[in-house]
Amino acid sequence: MKLSFIPREEKFYEMFNRSAKNVVLGAQTYKELVENWRQDHPNIQKIRDIEHEGDVITHEIVDGVNRTFVTPFDREDIHALASALDNVIDSIQAVSDRMQMYRIDRKDPHVAKLAEILLKSTEEIEKAIVEMSDSKKTRRVLDRCIEINRLENDGDAALSDAVGSLFRDGMNAIDVIKWKEVYEITESAIDRCEDVANTIESVLVKHG
Amino acid sequence: MKLSFIPREEKFYEMFNRSAKNVVLGAQTYKELVENWRQDHPNIQKIRDIEHEGDVITHEIVDGVNRTFVTPFDREDIHALASALDNVIDSIQAVSDRMQMYRIDRKDPHVAKLAEILLKSTEEIEKAIVEMSDSKKTRRVLDRCIEINRLENDGDAALSDAVGSLFRDGMNAIDVIKWKEVYEITESAIDRCEDVANTIESVLVKHG
Amino acid sequence: MKLSFIPREEKFYEMFNRSAKNVVLGAQTYKELVENWRQDHPNIQKIRDIEHEGDVITHEIVDGVNRTFVTPFDREDIHALASALDNVIDSIQAVSDRMQMYRIDRKDPHVAKLAEILLKSTEEIEKAIVEMSDSKKTRRVLDRCIEINRLENDGDAALSDAVGSLFRDGMNAIDVIKWKEVYEITESAIDRCEDVANTIESVLVKHG
Repeated sequence: MKLSFIPREEKFYEMFNRSAKNVVLGAQTYKELVENWRQDHPNIQKIRDIEHEGDVITHEIVDGVNRTFVTPFDREDIHALASALDNVIDSIQAVSDRMQMYRIDRKDPHVAKLAEILLKSTEEIEKAIVEMSDSKKTRRVLDRCIEINRLENDGDAALSDAVGSLFRDGMNAIDVIKWKEVYEITESAIDRCEDVANTIESVLVKHG
Repeated sequence: MKLSFIPREEKFYEMFNRSAKNVVLGAQTYKELVENWRQDHPNIQKIRDIEHEGDVITHEIVDGVNRTFVTPFDREDIHALASALDNVIDSIQAVSDRMQMYRIDRKDPHVAKLAEILLKSTEEIEKAIVEMSDSKKTRRVLDRCIEINRLENDGDAALSDAVGSLFRDGMNAIDVIKWKEVYEITESAIDRCEDVANTIESVLVKHG
Repeated sequence: MKLSFIPREEKFYEMFNRSAKNVVLGAQTYKELVENWRQDHPNIQKIRDIEHEGDVITHEIVDGVNRTFVTPFDREDIHALASALDNVIDSIQAVSDRMQMYRIDRKDPHVAKLAEILLKSTEEIEKAIVEMSDSKKTRRVLDRCIEINRLENDGDAALSDAVGSLFRDGMNAIDVIKWKEVYEITESAIDRCEDVANTIESVLVKHG
């Protein structure tokens, strides 16, 4: 019998990499959805499946923490990072479901802009998580966290533009309520990316 | 003089049990209120009293942490758990007050559904907190945390249904704004239960 | 060459004092703005500059943590406190920008009341942070945290009054949406002050 000599630490990073990759996939699928919106677009169901996959990975990580003695960083930080990644996907699914429920009937450039910022944030997260396992890359990871914070500021500005447009266009109040929420939940997904960055930063600061 | 030999740890668990019981009482009182809604229902005041009692218990716990040397788990976790429990009650009071202020004039099945999920979540919290003091029940406590997370997903789905119904019924925008907020704050109380579960999980993971 | 004998700890407290002072300045500038509202008031830009200054200070603190060996309290707490202070300013800028974007065209007593509570909260924060460096003043700092929590309750009540007024006045739905958001973001700035107080409390509890 051949024994595995892969250190247990690696398994953790591998699970986090899978989780981050799943988050990127969620953001890509959402961007594609809003750029080609129709109420019966298959990506709505695809996003639900991605969210479900996210739950499975998160559960594996949390379960792994409980059964493993050696972990690359504190157990509560592993837990926090796994949850923070999961929250990004949850927000993506929430807004996609809401758009269907609201019977949104047109494409919109503002939500496309927000989805683009969201995708960039998730891509930075994925790279940061891959690099986290290499202590020589701490500076680079921290720079990615700063970039994610900057993207969140872009998200705020894009949300502001988007909401402003609703009131300028003399839209009826019911449509204002619907669109405002679609914009706000998309922007909250970008906020959740910032939470991931802050969790990463806090882990690095602790072990810095 | 008779000395007390009750370990100080027990006093903490007893205070948390009281806090959890108070949260359940808040959720029961709210469920009864929305099922029998009228603007002068005595439960509106009763919920304010329960919220006040929650503040007293939370203060006792935080104060106890500062004066006690031996604590069953880290001081900051005690603080976090006490605050998380308090936040559940705060949300319940917020929505109950808001319903009165908005002069809500009818019962509604969607808010009753959300209140039912909220009550179930608080009941799981109470059981989890009782079982936390027994290290042999860690697995069972973690299962309750998973169940609270599942209930939160139910809450999301119920909120989605509830909000969807507002737009389908051709309701006027002012009423949409009011009801949407009543649903959302109720659902946020369920989210606060999930925060409690996450705090419990994180404590167990740390000491696991 | 004269060596500096100022302990490194002092530098941290000095940076936090600067951050807290900047938060108070933001709240003062906002209060003055809403009491004298016009769409081209110079304080709108002034608040953006204060927010930018806040980012600079936060970055200095986080960077300092990474380069300094001795810190007065845990690195992750320094990080949490710096972020919590930053969030207060972010909310102030968010609401000020939103008021301009919504082309708010009148002064309003409810937002002035909320801005007053916000200013008081930030003043308590500033005093608490100055006193934190003196371990003999722990009790006083904790009392300020309780006061900030009390002010947050005042904020909730003021928000409730404010929102209630919107529905009583037979306002059109579009204006209800705008004003409700202005009130809510201002109140969320007060919530962020409570987060600062909770972070301070948690640091003191840990080292108590």
